[in-house]
Amino acid sequence: MIDLRSDTVTKPTSAMRQAAFEAEVGDDVYGEDPTVQRLEAKAAEMLGKDAALFVTSGTQGNQISVLTHCQPGNEVLLEESSHLFLYEGASMSAFAGVQPRTIPGVRGAMNPEDIRAAIRPEDVHFPETGLICVENTHNKAGGAIVPLENMQAIYDVARTHNIPVHLDGARLFNAAAASGISVKRYADQVDTVQFCLSKGLGAPVGSVIAGSAEFITKARKWRKRLGGGLRQVGIIAAPGLVALNDMTDRLTVDHTHARRLAEGIGNIQGLEIEGKVETNMVLVNVGRLGQTAEEFLERMKEADVLANPFGPQTIRLVTHYDVNEQEIEKVIERVNDIAASLR
Amino acid sequence: MIDLRSDTVTKPTSAMRQAAFEAEVGDDVYGEDPTVQRLEAKAAEMLGKDAALFVTSGTQGNQISVLTHCQPGNEVLLEESSHLFLYEGASMSAFAGVQPRTIPGVRGAMNPEDIRAAIRPEDVHFPETGLICVENTHNKAGGAIVPLENMQAIYDVARTHNIPVHLDGARLFNAAAASGISVKRYADQVDTVQFCLSKGLGAPVGSVIAGSAEFITKARKWRKRLGGGLRQVGIIAAPGLVALNDMTDRLTVDHTHARRLAEGIGNIQGLEIEGKVETNMVLVNVGRLGQTAEEFLERMKEADVLANPFGPQTIRLVTHYDVNEQEIEKVIERVNDIAASLR
Amino acid sequence: MIDLRSDTVTKPTSAMRQAAFEAEVGDDVYGEDPTVQRLEAKAAEMLGKDAALFVTSGTQGNQISVLTHCQPGNEVLLEESSHLFLYEGASMSAFAGVQPRTIPGVRGAMNPEDIRAAIRPEDVHFPETGLICVENTHNKAGGAIVPLENMQAIYDVARTHNIPVHLDGARLFNAAAASGISVKRYADQVDTVQFCLSKGLGAPVGSVIAGSAEFITKARKWRKRLGGGLRQVGIIAAPGLVALNDMTDRLTVDHTHARRLAEGIGNIQGLEIEGKVETNMVLVNVGRLGQTAEEFLERMKEADVLANPFGPQTIRLVTHYDVNEQEIEKVIERVNDIAASLR
Amino acid sequence: MIDLRSDTVTKPTSAMRQAAFEAEVGDDVYGEDPTVQRLEAKAAEMLGKDAALFVTSGTQGNQISVLTHCQPGNEVLLEESSHLFLYEGASMSAFAGVQPRTIPGVRGAMNPEDIRAAIRPEDVHFPETGLICVENTHNKAGGAIVPLENMQAIYDVARTHNIPVHLDGARLFNAAAASGISVKRYADQVDTVQFCLSKGLGAPVGSVIAGSAEFITKARKWRKRLGGGLRQVGIIAAPGLVALNDMTDRLTVDHTHARRLAEGIGNIQGLEIEGKVETNMVLVNVGRLGQTAEEFLERMKEADVLANPFGPQTIRLVTHYDVNEQEIEKVIERVNDIAASLR
Repeated sequence: MIDLRSDTVTKPTSAMRQAAFEAEVGDDVYGEDPTVQRLEAKAAEMLGKDAALFVTSGTQGNQISVLTHCQPGNEVLLEESSHLFLYEGASMSAFAGVQPRTIPGVRGAMNPEDIRAAIRPEDVHFPETGLICVENTHNKAGGAIVPLENMQAIYDVARTHNIPVHLDGARLFNAAAASGISVKRYADQVDTVQFCLSKGLGAPVGSVIAGSAEFITKARKWRKRLGGGLRQVGIIAAPGLVALNDMTDRLTVDHTHARRLAEGIGNIQGLEIEGKVETNMVLVNVGRLGQTAEEFLERMKEADVLANPFGPQTIRLVTHYDVNEQEIEKVIERVNDIAASLR
Repeated sequence: MIDLRSDTVTKPTSAMRQAAFEAEVGDDVYGEDPTVQRLEAKAAEMLGKDAALFVTSGTQGNQISVLTHCQPGNEVLLEESSHLFLYEGASMSAFAGVQPRTIPGVRGAMNPEDIRAAIRPEDVHFPETGLICVENTHNKAGGAIVPLENMQAIYDVARTHNIPVHLDGARLFNAAAASGISVKRYADQVDTVQFCLSKGLGAPVGSVIAGSAEFITKARKWRKRLGGGLRQVGIIAAPGLVALNDMTDRLTVDHTHARRLAEGIGNIQGLEIEGKVETNMVLVNVGRLGQTAEEFLERMKEADVLANPFGPQTIRLVTHYDVNEQEIEKVIERVNDIAASLR
Repeated sequence: MIDLRSDTVTKPTSAMRQAAFEAEVGDDVYGEDPTVQRLEAKAAEMLGKDAALFVTSGTQGNQISVLTHCQPGNEVLLEESSHLFLYEGASMSAFAGVQPRTIPGVRGAMNPEDIRAAIRPEDVHFPETGLICVENTHNKAGGAIVPLENMQAIYDVARTHNIPVHLDGARLFNAAAASGISVKRYADQVDTVQFCLSKGLGAPVGSVIAGSAEFITKARKWRKRLGGGLRQVGIIAAPGLVALNDMTDRLTVDHTHARRLAEGIGNIQGLEIEGKVETNMVLVNVGRLGQTAEEFLERMKEADVLANPFGPQTIRLVTHYDVNEQEIEKVIERVNDIAASLR
Repeated sequence: MIDLRSDTVTKPTSAMRQAAFEAEVGDDVYGEDPTVQRLEAKAAEMLGKDAALFVTSGTQGNQISVLTHCQPGNEVLLEESSHLFLYEGASMSAFAGVQPRTIPGVRGAMNPEDIRAAIRPEDVHFPETGLICVENTHNKAGGAIVPLENMQAIYDVARTHNIPVHLDGARLFNAAAASGISVKRYADQVDTVQFCLSKGLGAPVGSVIAGSAEFITKARKWRKRLGGGLRQVGIIAAPGLVALNDMTDRLTVDHTHARRLAEGIGNIQGLEIEGKVETNMVLVNVGRLGQTAEEFLERMKEADVLANPFGPQTIRLVTHYDVNEQEIEKVIERVNDIAASLR
């Protein structure tokens, strides 16, 4: 099977398994795990923030950030197809008691003027705008890179109104690898960041949030409430450190693979690439072949290729560490065969 | 002062004051207030529902309905400029822990296909779609009547997916008076309804929710938790009964006044009526006069006419029981004078 | 029927009905109801606080106070049989997301040392102690007066730890009438107070909360979220003003009636008065007659006397404005007859 | 350092590290990690439940259970010094919106009659009793074993009222090892169980909840909302499997060590063992030596022995896999020296 469903499916590398095996550990609830401390220090440094905190998933990192920034009855501004809104089970409302207010984006980028217009003035009828969230790269927009200038403009609006900005940077390292802009420069445009160790970077488990020291202190308590205070966490932080140290530069390989996929599949009659391929995702529209996404995916599966549906007639292919160049070529061939059989 | 800010400003009529004075009362927490029971029975009958419950405001009625229908982590579908989303302080998220998902409407009417597309399939990432809300008449759409057929189509979608529908009918009696379709027929297209006694119907305080007997039993408990379980509530239910008995038919007068206002103001150079005037609201765009809403309202106030801002260059005028034909003409004259002075 | 179930059953007096009839009103959501403003100013002054806010019930006043003082994940210290803990539907957890921690009291009075011991130090495992609540008079303790010195000592502990104190003073005026200590002096020992207009003071509907100007501003918004922002609220504030002006002094009459009841019933063989009678409540234990509370109450009802169960073998009788001296004597007689028939 | 602060400090064994190194993994959000599936199947079988779910901590397991069993506004009955009440940051109120109601226990065992009395009848004022929680072994009671008969009696009461029972069995395997009663028999007396892999069983990270298939399906979604849906989780599930397979029987060694500690320290003049030592905890009162817990712990730390405070003059020592017989003897010696120096 060639698995292009998501970069979350990457298996830990030998180096990561070795790191887990050898990890120096302690009880992190007592603040005594040296490996997680190294990971957090490294992440904070890379992002240019005061402090960082290991969490077990991107969802947990995002939710802790919302809980730490907001009060119940606040409103959170975020892109209408963002992960926080679509894929986190309405947790921000269930746990933090806040109301999402969605802003339509262009390839994941919200218009700063739309944000300005959506910020609530003080009135007894209105929730207070408590947080603005940006997602970069933007998953639902096909791995689109939200431009640094867009983030700067949003941050300017936010600061004018004294509203914090959180970055769901689950795939921020992809944005950095593709744009040549450092994660730190992106992180400079927000108050807090979440990024995943377990997607393109290949670690088995975990994400990191970063922000001010005060933010991280409060976040640590919300993490405990969510059940994310772990014991000998070094065993999973160690592979995370390998991910941070060794796996960020190679993301460009995934991006090359994605572009090759887009090129190859884009040349197949009846298939269309949706949007630009900027990072490690390719959205393919199968509608002209008279197929639904599910039908086409079924045929791909029979040809030992896995991908995910991303709309009624759209499928998403994600490149990652566990897919090499030869496999990319095989995917193109097999998709070509399927398309041919359908024309 | 001629006050066109809202129909909420109506003062209780003499009959209402008399009713309050004479009201037969009891302790409603013990279920012993005969006046509120009469009001609830009357409201249930008018709406064709099993049971009804007096609440202190439209917001309380809507929030109780959300709390009763939903579980935390649910998603609620509702029109993007609906009162429940814009003007209730994010209460549905703060108290019921549910996430609103907004659907753009045309004059308040959501496309049933948009609703169908927004209903979540079961997936570990997704909130469950717990409720659909309709608002009729639609305040932010300028008192627009949501067509019965639209409500029917939405209800069909909802029932297919076994999702309840709630009607924010704060001004449902205006829709009925203007369309000639009974409130019962509208209420037939939803599971639960909230309507206000204190807007066009002129009662000083209160709203009513109606639905199945089981719904109302649960709602009563949520009302108590919100602090809406009152004692000798007959004193405010009595004017509410007067409102239901005597004030529904006369809403057509307000609608005539609104049309006259629209006609008069629409003929003034530099002013534009936004949308259709279907009930008791008139939206006026003052932009061509180079005015913001606030600036124009300030001038109106100096001319002893009050209205509310409804957008950067839009003002809303609402007709109601406490404004008569002569005053409507005066408003037109004075607005004309202001516009003339600005051209 | 002689109704001693609660002082909540009092019907509005003629003066109150007249006040409702004549009330000068406006739209209080716009801050324009002069009657409610007079009521709030009067209440703030009586309690010696900066500002006050009319709410529709004691529960609403208490819940708004918790919502305004606390953050989710806080712990609230309160007496183990307090109204806030036992009778408000777990609202403080459902809405404010706070955990009650109960302290056993002696006649409603908590030991300040127990409170000190229960305050949480900072630790990642612990909720933050966000609020201390006192109830005076204490309902479940039979209308017991919590001594001023106890409140002072608790406030001292609270201030040392920078924790606010809220007084559920639903029946604070009873405490004041009985002790000769002004409501202001009690209110001086807490940050915020809730008291009811609708219990011993006889108003049909409503309570008031008082505190700092900043507290009341925030409270107003939580009131709106709970659906307690009303329109021509003067219609119910007016009877409330009558209650505050005319009904506080006469509470001593209710207390005299309660003492007479206790004396009369206490002399009946087989019945026992539980605790001291300090205000307008009498707790009677019917166990020696081999009766459950429900059984004994059934017999009383047959004799046209109503009271409430307050434990497996305890009944509570509450004196109030609508019960006069002759009726008190009748109650004693009838209870005597019942007891005689059971011995 | 000999670390007796908690059994949470155990470091993963070589076998566990090896298991992590070799773990067969997959993306568990897609349900494809074979190792976690084996762990869950094994745990479900051992507990005699339909299904089980890996979670990252005991707190997460408990909170998911509360979220899955309860509705907001429910009341949860639990022992007054239980972990769920004292040490989980008021999460059950913050996230599930439920109110804890505490019952005093004797060595962790609640009187079933107290529970029966605390169950709420239906009334508009009352929360619904939504869950009963039992903790076994009981941490704050010094590792006390809650007798099976007590759990049976509580379950009988619960079933009569149709209320689910959850077991916080963080250290259930200690109860089983010490009593000779299987974990399954304990689990038979409740609807759902949480137990920890990371305490006495020595795994680095993780807990398991078990219950009906329907419960686990719902729990899986709440886990996702809490951010506990992980990817290649086999890397931590593998050591958990080692814990379940190899580490349960050896808990008796820890219990022998604890008894030896209690015997040795109990013979030291000025020190007193509090309660019985039934499992792996020893509570020592240092008050007769004129010491606070903190002061005595400081001296122990200087002697390279760590323990935790457990009350003003009480310290807790916990035995575990990483402390051997020789170290136990050293602890007794050093504590003896400290006590001698203080007498």
